[in-house]
Amino acid sequence: MNATICRSVINVASICGLYLAAAMLVPAFTDLYFRYDEWKVFALSAAIVGGISLLAAAATHSGPPPFNRKMGFLLVNVLWLVFSLVGAVPFMLSSLKLEFAKALFESISAITTTGSTVIVGLDNTPPGILIWRSLLHWLGGIGIVALGLFVMPYLRVGGISFFKMESSDTNDKPFARIASFTRAFVLVYVLITITCTLLYTVFGMSRFDAINHAMATVATGGFSTHDASFGYFNSEPLLWTSTFFMTVCSLPFSGLIVFMVRRRVNALRDPQILAFLAYLTAFSMAIAIYLRLENGVPFHSALTHSFFTVASILSTTGFASEDYTAWGPFVVTLAFFMTFIGGCSGSTAGGIKAYRFIILFNTIRTGLYKLIYPDGIHALRYGKMTVTVDLQQSVMLFITTYLALWAAGGVVMTAMGYDVLTSMSAVITALSNVGPGIGPVVGPAGNFSTLSDPALYVLCLMMLLGRLEVLTMLVLLTPRFWRS
Amino acid sequence: MNATICRSVINVASICGLYLAAAMLVPAFTDLYFRYDEWKVFALSAAIVGGISLLAAAATHSGPPPFNRKMGFLLVNVLWLVFSLVGAVPFMLSSLKLEFAKALFESISAITTTGSTVIVGLDNTPPGILIWRSLLHWLGGIGIVALGLFVMPYLRVGGISFFKMESSDTNDKPFARIASFTRAFVLVYVLITITCTLLYTVFGMSRFDAINHAMATVATGGFSTHDASFGYFNSEPLLWTSTFFMTVCSLPFSGLIVFMVRRRVNALRDPQILAFLAYLTAFSMAIAIYLRLENGVPFHSALTHSFFTVASILSTTGFASEDYTAWGPFVVTLAFFMTFIGGCSGSTAGGIKAYRFIILFNTIRTGLYKLIYPDGIHALRYGKMTVTVDLQQSVMLFITTYLALWAAGGVVMTAMGYDVLTSMSAVITALSNVGPGIGPVVGPAGNFSTLSDPALYVLCLMMLLGRLEVLTMLVLLTPRFWRS
Repeated sequence: MNATICRSVINVASICGLYLAAAMLVPAFTDLYFRYDEWKVFALSAAIVGGISLLAAAATHSGPPPFNRKMGFLLVNVLWLVFSLVGAVPFMLSSLKLEFAKALFESISAITTTGSTVIVGLDNTPPGILIWRSLLHWLGGIGIVALGLFVMPYLRVGGISFFKMESSDTNDKPFARIASFTRAFVLVYVLITITCTLLYTVFGMSRFDAINHAMATVATGGFSTHDASFGYFNSEPLLWTSTFFMTVCSLPFSGLIVFMVRRRVNALRDPQILAFLAYLTAFSMAIAIYLRLENGVPFHSALTHSFFTVASILSTTGFASEDYTAWGPFVVTLAFFMTFIGGCSGSTAGGIKAYRFIILFNTIRTGLYKLIYPDGIHALRYGKMTVTVDLQQSVMLFITTYLALWAAGGVVMTAMGYDVLTSMSAVITALSNVGPGIGPVVGPAGNFSTLSDPALYVLCLMMLLGRLEVLTMLVLLTPRFWRS
Repeated sequence: MNATICRSVINVASICGLYLAAAMLVPAFTDLYFRYDEWKVFALSAAIVGGISLLAAAATHSGPPPFNRKMGFLLVNVLWLVFSLVGAVPFMLSSLKLEFAKALFESISAITTTGSTVIVGLDNTPPGILIWRSLLHWLGGIGIVALGLFVMPYLRVGGISFFKMESSDTNDKPFARIASFTRAFVLVYVLITITCTLLYTVFGMSRFDAINHAMATVATGGFSTHDASFGYFNSEPLLWTSTFFMTVCSLPFSGLIVFMVRRRVNALRDPQILAFLAYLTAFSMAIAIYLRLENGVPFHSALTHSFFTVASILSTTGFASEDYTAWGPFVVTLAFFMTFIGGCSGSTAGGIKAYRFIILFNTIRTGLYKLIYPDGIHALRYGKMTVTVDLQQSVMLFITTYLALWAAGGVVMTAMGYDVLTSMSAVITALSNVGPGIGPVVGPAGNFSTLSDPALYVLCLMMLLGRLEVLTMLVLLTPRFWRS
């Protein structure tokens, strides 16, 4: 670690800060359009952030940065930290007057596409603030997909991306150059967002609500413009539309891009997609049947709400159509465990992710075979390809670290006096970037604003850890990282 | 899998059944001594079990069994199943008149040294039944240590035992022949039990209580002769005595034997012993300080109860001095997570076990190093020895399978209508062979008798899975196992 690297990292971060300052013009114009005085807040924020970024960028300007692995890790961490801090500025300056801890929490929750909120009374919140939250979601979604596509493979964090890039993507060479791939990705991302907005409008949302919810849906974020989330609209077509888009955006974008641009169906023939759709359907059906049998809900309505809720949790979006934790202990436990699972790698979804479960399951199976025939050769497969020992180890490493962090976070939260379920579910919902947890405080009917500042900081840390695939951040804690 | 193997397995199981029938004479004489009519129950049980075993043994008698890996797996599973069924007979025939599900649960809870009970009113239960429960604990403890020393290494289940046997134990050759090692082990086990009994008597227990509690302590089982468990005696010296013996019996017996027979202190210089004692002390101190600061308990008393409780959970014994789940959410969460952890490999303790956490921690550390320097060589160490990839994989395999079983069991329990905390804690306390869980039903102040039969069967399965190191049982579920 040396001065040149730090300088380059600050330089890149400052440039990103400039972009984010520019993005603040969107909420400024929104407030102007709706004739809210709050536009000044965003103009001021943009000026402050833009000014500081410009100065920092100029001060650290130099030739092309000397890119290496250490710088990669540092850069990713610093970027997400800068996004978080910049995102928090308008929350502090606005009429909401959020304190630093709350503003930072709201910003990190937005950037990491988690969707837990500390704002009470969303229905009366100025439109600029609402669109700023949605925009942070949306940009955070772009950021994480770009990270997964271009940076993580290089850093060898997140097993799938690098073997995806090393195998199908490079072998097939669907896009020779990163630039054209990036263009295609942004195009697809924007296209999905627009389609989602249009459908939301068709099914009854106001244009403003539709834009906000579409951005939150596509980023699998979960912020709403109403305290009651999707419950406010009370519309089955809207729930199904949202279910569809949350599901689509939990699929790997590389596959979606190839499918949409090249019209190649086999781009979607990825074992993790099959696994994800299979467990999404299984959980939804189980809950629907439970709701029908135990609670006497009409099956049609049970299906709508169960698919919506399961898609919302598995895609790590976190919208709610109702307080599903009131549906009985079976649903609560299932929701709790689904919070760990997540969507596909390469999407905007968080969690442990489907491909890791496939590799885990196959590891257990071959492990058992090995016990029976210790000298036999038991290849570990993911679809048609053989999983290397390295990849298998990285998957097991990720899963166990993830669970260890959850346990540690849960203990810290209860040491602050929160009850067991609140602590354990708040930490995992933050780590998996889902949004709602379980219980009156952090559940779908609750609000994170009642948590103490230290608890909010713990959850901020968990959201960032989860979003950056855990190991990317933990690397910074090893002394070796800082040695020259 | 063929007829010869099945024949041999039944033969060995029948002979073990005979021994267990003989063991029933202990409670029979106990009831005779205390002038209870229940001695007839045990005489009858002994006759039934002995008769059936004798017939089965004679019918399947043949030369020395053709021992191989498949037979090994089958044998271990069948043995624990037979022990469980035989152990249940007196519970069904006695004046308690337990139904099959409850009797089987009590028996499995005893044999697996779990210590969860369905019997209400222990203080008025005939002494024969009480000593039978303790005896099953004690024999189950011998069984699991023997399994870990002699069978598991051969089956390559439970990483540590086999590399222990392959390295220090064989290199040092402290006992050349298994027979002398077995004698030494039984001697040490009996000696510890007698010492524990004497100390319990000195500090105020009746002789009967002392014998029962000593057997439950040494086996890290947890059955008591009183509903209030150790709370009944209200004596600090007794709590500290129990803390000491629960801790000792969570250490690897192979080390204890070498230490006690050969007086070699370095037999105890095992990283897992250090780790276990370290986290035991850390958790105890944390709880003691919490009790002092939050609940205003005098520090001396707080220390006694916290060390006792932590040793009880980590050793997977499950004695209680008080309802520790009433000590506040921090203690509840810590108790919950401690239930996963367990003691050392090669002891009577259950859980994931200390050496796996050492290897896990080192795996995470080297995994992070590998991210920084992908081409560097990062040896994974356990103490002074290098951990092979095989061992490391088997550890990760165990941990993830363990957690997957916990999640699956928890979902099944809540599907039966139990609340989230009861379900999740009941399953893990069974899987780790601890005993008490969290909440009014399965907590330290509760009783498992109110659970439905299906729920009891789920927990029976979990107790057996946990006791047999999970994979030993799961192997039977693969189709390949049954192929010839």
